[in-house]
Amino acid sequence: MSAPVFLGVIGVGGVGTAFLNQLARLPNAPKLILLARSTQTLLSPTPSYSPSIPAAEWKTASATPSLTKSGALSAEEIANYLSSAPGRSILVDNTSDPALAASYPVFLRKGISIVTPNKKGFSSDLSLWKDIFASAAQGNALVYHESTVGAGLPVISTLRDLVATGDEVTRIEGVFSGTLSFLFNTFAPVGGSGAAGKKWSEVVAEAKELGYTEPDPRDDLNGMDVARKLTILARIAGLEVQAPDAFPVESLIPEELRSLDGSAEGVKTFMDRLGEFDGQMTEIKESAEKEGKVVRYVGSVDVEKKEVRVGLQRFDKDSAIAGLKGSDNIISFYTKRYGSNPLIVQGAGAGGDVTAMGVSADLIKVVQRLQ
Amino acid sequence: MSAPVFLGVIGVGGVGTAFLNQLARLPNAPKLILLARSTQTLLSPTPSYSPSIPAAEWKTASATPSLTKSGALSAEEIANYLSSAPGRSILVDNTSDPALAASYPVFLRKGISIVTPNKKGFSSDLSLWKDIFASAAQGNALVYHESTVGAGLPVISTLRDLVATGDEVTRIEGVFSGTLSFLFNTFAPVGGSGAAGKKWSEVVAEAKELGYTEPDPRDDLNGMDVARKLTILARIAGLEVQAPDAFPVESLIPEELRSLDGSAEGVKTFMDRLGEFDGQMTEIKESAEKEGKVVRYVGSVDVEKKEVRVGLQRFDKDSAIAGLKGSDNIISFYTKRYGSNPLIVQGAGAGGDVTAMGVSADLIKVVQRLQ
Repeated sequence: MSAPVFLGVIGVGGVGTAFLNQLARLPNAPKLILLARSTQTLLSPTPSYSPSIPAAEWKTASATPSLTKSGALSAEEIANYLSSAPGRSILVDNTSDPALAASYPVFLRKGISIVTPNKKGFSSDLSLWKDIFASAAQGNALVYHESTVGAGLPVISTLRDLVATGDEVTRIEGVFSGTLSFLFNTFAPVGGSGAAGKKWSEVVAEAKELGYTEPDPRDDLNGMDVARKLTILARIAGLEVQAPDAFPVESLIPEELRSLDGSAEGVKTFMDRLGEFDGQMTEIKESAEKEGKVVRYVGSVDVEKKEVRVGLQRFDKDSAIAGLKGSDNIISFYTKRYGSNPLIVQGAGAGGDVTAMGVSADLIKVVQRLQ
Repeated sequence: MSAPVFLGVIGVGGVGTAFLNQLARLPNAPKLILLARSTQTLLSPTPSYSPSIPAAEWKTASATPSLTKSGALSAEEIANYLSSAPGRSILVDNTSDPALAASYPVFLRKGISIVTPNKKGFSSDLSLWKDIFASAAQGNALVYHESTVGAGLPVISTLRDLVATGDEVTRIEGVFSGTLSFLFNTFAPVGGSGAAGKKWSEVVAEAKELGYTEPDPRDDLNGMDVARKLTILARIAGLEVQAPDAFPVESLIPEELRSLDGSAEGVKTFMDRLGEFDGQMTEIKESAEKEGKVVRYVGSVDVEKKEVRVGLQRFDKDSAIAGLKGSDNIISFYTKRYGSNPLIVQGAGAGGDVTAMGVSADLIKVVQRLQ
């Protein structure tokens, strides 16, 4: 149960850095033999694949003379390097790169397992999803991606356990974006306290200021991040969702501002002009209030009707979704066994440390299965 | 990755029956070679350990001439039988038998992995807990027990992931008994609706009627079931809890009725006389109401202070614990990474199907690791 396992890691952004910190403290960690950032790759020298890269000192490790340095390597090159290591190997993809995700089958067919928080591989065209899992079976490799939905919250693993043990998942519903959770918890709080008076554009500006949104807040407001998460959950629940744009996704970008480009100038114009449309959001909020409800941005999968939806919905003020705090996610699984009260998972669904936690926990499980 | 794995199952009560139904539908299920109920044991004949017992027809399988029948076997005998099978083997203990739990080390040292919802092994004296995990390491065997807390809810796995990835769990808090959840959600509902008028003894009688309590409701009301669950969580979080009676556990059995024996007569006298003490519970409820709160029966582990407690506590009406429905459990993990908003798991924490689900999901994971 203790064959050596080798590890390649790509990406040293927020999640990547947090992951490397966690890796450095894992007992029984696999040997880190490749660490790639955008233009630089650090490798353990072949053919010995030794010494390994010290995860604790990854920032300064490129100065270590016994390690090999290289520019950016192609996916093929990385896969060849890892698959020639003297033991099973794992690739941790801590990027959000669609091109790297598209090459997962190359790794998997060579027997390299994948652990990743990168949603792209699992939420793009259905053919890629199928290719990934067929390649994993063919290469006798594993694919773990807990952090693609709800960061480190036990969402993917719970859904897979429900399905694998023969439960019938009828419906999945929840708040899947920390950013949109914060925006609506602030814009339309249950208590209706002081903050209730803030205009939508003010809340968005505040969230941007706090770093809670993407640098371009339209990447949150267009709903595509939530749509990708729903695509993943729907597929695990058994629906053949073709792509994340194959079902209704409500964009919170006003119609009139959709033609603005993605440049810094475009972002600025968008933020400047968003206030012109505050009336629309106020109306949505007040119309919910008249029914004694609050509005939230949610996603849902109705497995029986084969319907996936992402958008605004009204919720009773005493519901769990309405009562969400801060930027928490909440995911409810309605199943045959759990009956009328769903199985609920709730908590922070974004942030480097908790996302990295999901990656580290997956890595531990993959290592346990490979050894 | 497909060496044969052999399975022995003990117990065919509510959970055991539900488990066998799930097992019958598992793809890639291990071979069932031993099925033991109180006085009867069904075995695949040695030395071939073939044919295996059909899980789908376990009720009628004892009529199959090619299988071996026997009376009750000792733990030693079962361990010898399983460890001689031509492959790795797993024991699923679906009983709540303390004697069987005390013999887990015997199985584990022989390399037999354990999967169980039986709390006894993990919540009795600390020496047994230590012996179990030391024996597992020695025998290179695995121990999975998700369903010992919160049935199939992802509680143990989540806590183990938090700890294994280096998070600091500071506090665990929640409602851990489906029975006590139902009793208090009914006795002191947040809405304060019609049911609010019911007396405590009436609510207990109703729950007993519905089959929500143990046959002897004192087994729920004494708090020991919750204390055992807290013992398990505290130990995983790193506290060396000596035993489930080594910390304060508030019993809801009135002082004056504690001397009644466990006979059917004792149960009847208890139920008959419980109403005499309704005033005490009404007072507790009303005193919470005066503060705008509701009373709930909760358990908590304060990891930093090394304190474990089980008993009544007051909660704000808009808190998640106060808003619990039916007989749901809720478990909140406060950790360094998750910050001020805990990671929360909520849902049915009792019932044959959902408890068996936790057992089946564990079994799948153990098989994956052994293959």
